[in-house]
Amino acid sequence: MKPIVCLVRVEAALPGLHDNTADLDRLQQALMATLADDRFLTIPFERIVSVTRVFRESGFAGYALLNDQDQGWVVADFFAERPQVVAGMALDLGTTHLEATLLDLETGNILAEGNLENSQISFGADILSRIHHATGKRRQQKEPAPDFLDPGLHELQQTIVSAINELAEQLAKSAGLRLDEIRALSVSGNTTMAHLFLGIDPYHICREPYIPLFNRAPALEAAHLELVIHRASPVWIMPSVGSYFGGDLISGILASGIAQSEKTRMLIDVGTNAEVVLGNSEWLIACAGAAGPALEGGVARMGMRAGPGAIEYVSIDPKSYELEYRTIGNVPPRGICGSGLIDLVAALYLSQVVDIRGKIRDPKREQDQARATFMEARIQKRGGVRAFLVAGKEESYQGREILLEQIDLDAMMRSKAAMYAVLKTLISQVGLEFSDLEEIAVAGAFGRHINPERAITLGMLPDLPLSVYHAIGNSSLRGAEKVLLDKAARLACEKIVSSITYLELNVNQEFMIRFSGSRFIPHTDSSLFPSVPIFSGIE
Amino acid sequence: MKPIVCLVRVEAALPGLHDNTADLDRLQQALMATLADDRFLTIPFERIVSVTRVFRESGFAGYALLNDQDQGWVVADFFAERPQVVAGMALDLGTTHLEATLLDLETGNILAEGNLENSQISFGADILSRIHHATGKRRQQKEPAPDFLDPGLHELQQTIVSAINELAEQLAKSAGLRLDEIRALSVSGNTTMAHLFLGIDPYHICREPYIPLFNRAPALEAAHLELVIHRASPVWIMPSVGSYFGGDLISGILASGIAQSEKTRMLIDVGTNAEVVLGNSEWLIACAGAAGPALEGGVARMGMRAGPGAIEYVSIDPKSYELEYRTIGNVPPRGICGSGLIDLVAALYLSQVVDIRGKIRDPKREQDQARATFMEARIQKRGGVRAFLVAGKEESYQGREILLEQIDLDAMMRSKAAMYAVLKTLISQVGLEFSDLEEIAVAGAFGRHINPERAITLGMLPDLPLSVYHAIGNSSLRGAEKVLLDKAARLACEKIVSSITYLELNVNQEFMIRFSGSRFIPHTDSSLFPSVPIFSGIE
Repeated sequence: MKPIVCLVRVEAALPGLHDNTADLDRLQQALMATLADDRFLTIPFERIVSVTRVFRESGFAGYALLNDQDQGWVVADFFAERPQVVAGMALDLGTTHLEATLLDLETGNILAEGNLENSQISFGADILSRIHHATGKRRQQKEPAPDFLDPGLHELQQTIVSAINELAEQLAKSAGLRLDEIRALSVSGNTTMAHLFLGIDPYHICREPYIPLFNRAPALEAAHLELVIHRASPVWIMPSVGSYFGGDLISGILASGIAQSEKTRMLIDVGTNAEVVLGNSEWLIACAGAAGPALEGGVARMGMRAGPGAIEYVSIDPKSYELEYRTIGNVPPRGICGSGLIDLVAALYLSQVVDIRGKIRDPKREQDQARATFMEARIQKRGGVRAFLVAGKEESYQGREILLEQIDLDAMMRSKAAMYAVLKTLISQVGLEFSDLEEIAVAGAFGRHINPERAITLGMLPDLPLSVYHAIGNSSLRGAEKVLLDKAARLACEKIVSSITYLELNVNQEFMIRFSGSRFIPHTDSSLFPSVPIFSGIE
Repeated sequence: MKPIVCLVRVEAALPGLHDNTADLDRLQQALMATLADDRFLTIPFERIVSVTRVFRESGFAGYALLNDQDQGWVVADFFAERPQVVAGMALDLGTTHLEATLLDLETGNILAEGNLENSQISFGADILSRIHHATGKRRQQKEPAPDFLDPGLHELQQTIVSAINELAEQLAKSAGLRLDEIRALSVSGNTTMAHLFLGIDPYHICREPYIPLFNRAPALEAAHLELVIHRASPVWIMPSVGSYFGGDLISGILASGIAQSEKTRMLIDVGTNAEVVLGNSEWLIACAGAAGPALEGGVARMGMRAGPGAIEYVSIDPKSYELEYRTIGNVPPRGICGSGLIDLVAALYLSQVVDIRGKIRDPKREQDQARATFMEARIQKRGGVRAFLVAGKEESYQGREILLEQIDLDAMMRSKAAMYAVLKTLISQVGLEFSDLEEIAVAGAFGRHINPERAITLGMLPDLPLSVYHAIGNSSLRGAEKVLLDKAARLACEKIVSSITYLELNVNQEFMIRFSGSRFIPHTDSSLFPSVPIFSGIE
């Protein structure tokens, strides 16, 4: 295991009249002899005084802390005594949420875990509105100086830096460490978040031909970004592949192990976008599509992120038509999260409350008595359009009933159609069938909570044995942890970025055709979903 | 010619939906393709925004300015149009004096020249008092923080940075350039001056075993030092070999060409110390001794640096005893500089006014009538000791007579003895004779002004044909110019530092014996100076 910062014991010969090597050269030579590699070793100017002073005062021996940067070793610090702990912070820098772990970089042990809302939300819920906020002022200037910093961008950067600092304080406190004992930070985020974090203009990310300013960030130290962890900490930004294929997904690929696998596997990560990767150790192909909106909080009217009060599981008994749900934290429901929504729509389809087009049926036309009663009780009209009552006022948080409106259902249908079309387009692109896959890793909150069976019912995921699906949790964070701990993982990022083929769906005709075919439950071609019962009635 | 910063034309492919390489990666790739070497290329974080903005706005083509640093290429700037000039400043950072040139780094042409007193003089005339000023406060602290900056050191650093900034402004103005068109700085200075310039503790330089904190400075940019030239300018500090063997001498060796010479040559540089190097392309041996004091302004009572009003040439007609002198600038004399002092003492010896011990003879005992008259007119008593009047009140600046006192003569005798002893010890060390040398380069103001014939008369320089001696001017500055312009020179510094053997005279018994033997004019062993007439009388 070769962590991103490592501690090296140094013992140099003592100076004398016949060995007048300067302190700095003496340290450098002793370090190079210990490391015994041919990498460049730098002792940055701003640390020369403090590093050499400790080196001299501890009798020309002690412990050097070295940052492993692309361009070589960089001396971060020097100690007379071996420090108790060298900690590193791994961060999943999500558009809506930050999640982090604090690791002991020598043992790999987790010292603390934490999370926080992304406070940038106050400047816009989604990436587009944040880019707008970050780039508006500069575009108003006639001839801005080349280094003009848009105040909106600065604001977003400050906001995210403050949030990271708050999270670092939380982690340090929980682990009983000082902030300056955190000696490294790795960050997985989408391309826009990475730009905003570094205060770099994201303007072109969302404009054809969608060119980010950077995919590989330069070598950074915490002091560059006003982070409160030790100022010499290397800050590793997970590289991205393009504007819509960010470091969070590279991190996920790393965590999933696809790029090291002999057998072809698939990774599905649903956030704001559905990002999908197919491949093995030989090749990787990836694409992203706007499949997620209905599954993320904030888009569906009663949608919310997977958090306390979110309905995460719904079932309707096919005989008694009894509706059951479970909320996260077992508290009165406040809304419904992605997995709950999938469960709900699948249950509504299986109980024939919605039809194969995803439309809420008319209770009045229902023949089956039990179902008609259930529908009468649950289906209401909102603005002349049918809506389904999931939870009434009496059982909900603050008496706000949870209602699935047709507009939400439509969004859900588009999302599930997009998801399946993405998967199908990708697998066809390489001439394989879904059945060739031994494993499909499903990442993210989505992966943690969904029931693949229900997603199959909807025609969102391919009709494969459930054992094929594996939830791998927050793969973006897991990848960030890996790069802190292991040089092989850091090198693998480079390999993943360079070996990945990106399939642009926005210009893909095949995808559009598949998307249309997927806008039914489970699909226009029901033979693709042999395990799903077909109720073909359309009103 | 490979200057320390160079301009590279870049033309990158335009981005499109099928080439979504990020701007930064696009620039990096285009640069690496153009450079076609395997060196690491860095675009520092703080310049990403401005560099990529110009790159994009000029249609992904333009001119990159690259700093050639040890660890690889560092992008300093990017231009849409080829800049008119890329200038570099070469600086000789002397203890008493700063001298600089401004060069066009593409043509090597000199754009401007300038010089300035070292304003640190107000904190102490010599290196020891400056070290004392720079380190006093810290030593008073019980347990200073590792990064505690001594206010005295800070003061000295600020002073020298201000002086360099002033000089840079002077040069830019004289060349008609903006300050930010100066894109590089090279600095030759002794080890103490280099420490003070970088704000690095010089405490141990003057304490046994005389270990400097650094000999090779780390990669620096102007912004690190608050210099007013372009902030991304690389600052090259000429490496040193030890506390008393500084970058100024390495620069001199570079300028003299000794290290590239097949034949063995010698370099003599007299500043505060006499620094002497002997060698060829195979080996180099060097030593330094406190030979200079009497030759530098400020030590001899009427001594001064070679500047306006300094007597730089003196002769006494052996028959008429007419004394003639010439001052720099042909103005009334204010004092006497090193070369004038050598001329004067040599003339006094040849006209038998001083004896072989360097003592002013008693006019009353003189037999020769003409000489007795001359001596009576010129020799006065000061505190009971004889002194020689060089220029009377009526002819001097502000009516202050120029008097050579015995104490000045004694200092001069010690200096000349030390100089010869240094040269002799060095040549003996390698088993050669002075006659084996085809060339002796004499550097510095001393070299520019002295008459080697007179120095031979005094027994200061070996008795060799005058054609052997070459004045090479300010070799410290010439070396600083070379490193700005030529990579081979930068690499040669490294070679010089690592191949040089330093002979420590403070612990050399042979030197002390030779020093005693040299305290006569020309020498106790007059056979060493066949060209010098011997007047053996001692009173």
